Amino acid sequence: MTQDLTVYEAIERRRDVRAEFSGELLDDDVLVRILSAAHRAPSVGNSQPWDFVVIQSPETLDAFAAHVACKRDDFAESLPPERAATFSPIKIEGIRESRTGIVVTHDQSRGGQHVLGRHTITDAGLFSTVLAIQNLWLAATAEGIGVGWVSFYDEPFLANLAGLPEGVRPIAWLCIGPVTRLQEVPDLERFGWRSRRPLDEAIHRERF
Amino acid sequence: MTQDLTVYEAIERRRDVRAEFSGELLDDDVLVRILSAAHRAPSVGNSQPWDFVVIQSPETLDAFAAHVACKRDDFAESLPPERAATFSPIKIEGIRESRTGIVVTHDQSRGGQHVLGRHTITDAGLFSTVLAIQNLWLAATAEGIGVGWVSFYDEPFLANLAGLPEGVRPIAWLCIGPVTRLQEVPDLERFGWRSRRPLDEAIHRERF
Repeated sequence: MTQDLTVYEAIERRRDVRAEFSGELLDDDVLVRILSAAHRAPSVGNSQPWDFVVIQSPETLDAFAAHVACKRDDFAESLPPERAATFSPIKIEGIRESRTGIVVTHDQSRGGQHVLGRHTITDAGLFSTVLAIQNLWLAATAEGIGVGWVSFYDEPFLANLAGLPEGVRPIAWLCIGPVTRLQEVPDLERFGWRSRRPLDEAIHRERF
Repeated sequence: MTQDLTVYEAIERRRDVRAEFSGELLDDDVLVRILSAAHRAPSVGNSQPWDFVVIQSPETLDAFAAHVACKRDDFAESLPPERAATFSPIKIEGIRESRTGIVVTHDQSRGGQHVLGRHTITDAGLFSTVLAIQNLWLAATAEGIGVGWVSFYDEPFLANLAGLPEGVRPIAWLCIGPVTRLQEVPDLERFGWRSRRPLDEAIHRERF
């Protein structure tokens, strides 16, 4: 039990998991605790515009994995040869092995017509939903559970698969489940796809 | 020193701070630790598309506060009378009192032409930047430091104020600084603006 990980430890240990899912099914109590952490995220005007569709049916996982495989091929074909070779060994999802997918959705109509803090920045609602995902990710890490965000999909396909009503947008498919371990170095660094940027370059004083 | 807050404790304790800034200036070592936590966020294709402009000049804080005050008036005028009365006592920013603003920005061109995982979902880059904000917020909470996200502004105004280059978008102004305390109940619940949605309503099984 690692639930007592500190914030900094969890931020450091968190990985985007693809290959390390153990194949066990996530305990439902743990799942609900993790979703409860997501649900405590800040949101513009307290609109709480997120929902979580928990998918464990093998047929649905298979259907999504097949769709993602096609999108992976599309991306591979778009790359120049050298990048394609770097991309080739990189696993991009653990949809079946994680045994649980969470489709995080965003409903821009939640909160009615007058959302405090959203009249100037339309995307502020969407940002709230994304903040919930990071809460979820860190809570899962504290529980010793792996999370992998898959973004190789067409939104209409996933909206249909998850039975989303009109106006509700899928924001993420998260693979979530027990893991054998978490990698120490992120996959995309280990495979030479792209390295870390120094913090100094990201901090500016007074003006960009 | 509360740096050893667990993830769940920080998620529970985190508030969107407006009125509780003490007026002391944030220690720079603490600021850099918090930004380092933000910088360890996951990002699509490891693109790390975020930057942080730290603003402490009183003139710039004043200029931003004046702009936000106008936007607050615009919102108040758009409300029906009953909502306007509920809105009236709600403080929406602590720009001057926090003494430090962090403008979090997003650069969609970071990572070049082929961003792994962004060819299907254009917004995946933007989502990465928002994940960094939640890391920052939880790390600050663990440090006993308050953060308040201000979204009452026009993007071109803030882009100009922070000297952002063409193509770099401001995503948030975060007021950040020492606090006298963190509220137990979020402001918008205390002031009757909008209450919490039950978790059960947000969780769906297999389909929405």
